[in-house]
Amino acid sequence: MAVLTVDLGERSYPIHVDAGLLRRDELIREFIVGSEVMVVSDETVAPLYLDQLLAVLTGMRVTCQILPCGEDTKNLHTVTQLFDTMLEASCSRSVTVIALGGGVIGDIAGFVAACYHRGVEYLQVPTTLLAQVDSAVGGKTGINHALGKNMIGAFHQPRCVISDIDTLATLESRQVSAGIAEVLKYALIRDANFFAWLSEHMSALLVCDRDTLTETIIACCRIKAELVAADERETGDRALLNLGHTFGHAIETATGYGEWLHGEAVAVGMVLAAEMSQRLGWLGSHEVDQIRELLVRAGLPVDPPPEMTAEDFLRHMTRDKKVCDGRIRLVLLKSIGRAKLVSDYPDSVLHEVLN
Amino acid sequence: MAVLTVDLGERSYPIHVDAGLLRRDELIREFIVGSEVMVVSDETVAPLYLDQLLAVLTGMRVTCQILPCGEDTKNLHTVTQLFDTMLEASCSRSVTVIALGGGVIGDIAGFVAACYHRGVEYLQVPTTLLAQVDSAVGGKTGINHALGKNMIGAFHQPRCVISDIDTLATLESRQVSAGIAEVLKYALIRDANFFAWLSEHMSALLVCDRDTLTETIIACCRIKAELVAADERETGDRALLNLGHTFGHAIETATGYGEWLHGEAVAVGMVLAAEMSQRLGWLGSHEVDQIRELLVRAGLPVDPPPEMTAEDFLRHMTRDKKVCDGRIRLVLLKSIGRAKLVSDYPDSVLHEVLN
Repeated sequence: MAVLTVDLGERSYPIHVDAGLLRRDELIREFIVGSEVMVVSDETVAPLYLDQLLAVLTGMRVTCQILPCGEDTKNLHTVTQLFDTMLEASCSRSVTVIALGGGVIGDIAGFVAACYHRGVEYLQVPTTLLAQVDSAVGGKTGINHALGKNMIGAFHQPRCVISDIDTLATLESRQVSAGIAEVLKYALIRDANFFAWLSEHMSALLVCDRDTLTETIIACCRIKAELVAADERETGDRALLNLGHTFGHAIETATGYGEWLHGEAVAVGMVLAAEMSQRLGWLGSHEVDQIRELLVRAGLPVDPPPEMTAEDFLRHMTRDKKVCDGRIRLVLLKSIGRAKLVSDYPDSVLHEVLN
Repeated sequence: MAVLTVDLGERSYPIHVDAGLLRRDELIREFIVGSEVMVVSDETVAPLYLDQLLAVLTGMRVTCQILPCGEDTKNLHTVTQLFDTMLEASCSRSVTVIALGGGVIGDIAGFVAACYHRGVEYLQVPTTLLAQVDSAVGGKTGINHALGKNMIGAFHQPRCVISDIDTLATLESRQVSAGIAEVLKYALIRDANFFAWLSEHMSALLVCDRDTLTETIIACCRIKAELVAADERETGDRALLNLGHTFGHAIETATGYGEWLHGEAVAVGMVLAAEMSQRLGWLGSHEVDQIRELLVRAGLPVDPPPEMTAEDFLRHMTRDKKVCDGRIRLVLLKSIGRAKLVSDYPDSVLHEVLN
């Protein structure tokens, strides 16, 4: 079993990546503080894996809430329902919340854990590729608002991340592709060799070959753990993890959460960021083509929704969390494998790319 | 001007206590990070002091929201409205939230600051005695739930606390008394001399004599700053600040938030805690009488709502945040000036006191 560590002093925690982890009673129980557990999952994942998890939790006082699937569940209304459930069940401050699901479940459950009784412990048990490589690691929790994605939330680190790659066997291909978008992000911002390796192994990744998956998840988590450890609250380099996200969040918000998967929107966002980087003279057309091609091979969209205008993008992007002094800051690429947070680009370049 | 410090490493901050602070432009502006401000106040305080604050903020981009008064405003619905306002105003991550009001406003605004964009800065500008001596200091933020008080929230420290004692001149006497309840709490848990001093100066305090007020506020803030610095997230001695609160929260929740002021409920709670301490042989009847008498002199209630049964109390108290392994932990008094968090009391003693 691979174990990485997110090094955050007394808030450090491990990321376990392997097959069969959901059956490893002692592993999961080790991270549960008391004897009370609140499991949050969704209607796709619960029928597949909830029983396995409950078997591990035998003898504990367990409350479950199963949420509808999809990004449009990630709102204050759902959070309210979870608080109601936990209070009705008299969950105490020593309850441990377990997020069993993809990024949406992890973000909601983590936020609920951050706020319940002013903060309780939680475990991330991600069951999608996207969550295993990205959203389950790093303590960003939160919900969406009609006016912007992830606008309300907290930094709240889990006690551990348990990524059982067996759970990816049941993932729809669209979800696999969405996860690959975040995988490619890591390569683009940090590791040109990983980008080349992914290009070679894309077919194996798409069919969820176990060794390829494991190697990929570990590579991504290693980069994320390093960036998070160096900059937990995103005052510096952690922002590079947002490559494609400012554009992507605009797409998700404009289309109403759920129509586009997060990874799909990020894929288009990365193409737009690459095109902007090209116009700034940082990337050649060959590299932009490489990026676009690999995204297409991964089964991802590379063009924005046809109905979205440049004004639509800008309206949503001006509410991005990285806006500083009224200026939209963007993660762009100096080359494949090297990213930079930029605010001093000419506005005309952004407008050209969006038109 | 008195300045105390809450010593929390890089999150340390000052508490300023003096008259005329709301007119001190440079003092308040020093703590505002960018040029965006979100002011949260209520319908009583805003007509009295908002203009003064706005004059200080000249030239900044200011958004205001004025909330209805009272504890029943402190809920998720209000928080949602504040998020809406801030997003509609395109407040960025560098916005500074200012809480201008009493404990309710400070708790709500602090929680909104904790969650907006995963955390922005905020200032506490408390305008009630209760907020100046207690709730504005220490970073406890949050809202109520129908099933329990302060059940949802965050630890989020302000950048500073600015207690302008001039604002207490307009305080209703009922609010002054509610503040004195928390003042007496500090004396009871930590300082027998302060208790004696308060007994001597109660009349001056009740008429808001400026010197008495200043001395009182500083004494309370000094105790609170010390306890918070030693135990920010309440894993130890900070819990002593909850003397009377487990009983008090039950009263507030059972009567529907707002009928009883928080300080009034805490006053009754302290009497119940004192009676329990007496039954455990820690306090003599003379000391319990002293406590009760001083609360009465302060214009505070000392008996629970007649309609509340022991069962009502216990039902609400079992959801208290200090419950551990199903056991209600209570802050009791070993003597006047010395408190202890206790879980190994005989249940019969608690039942006797509640009946």
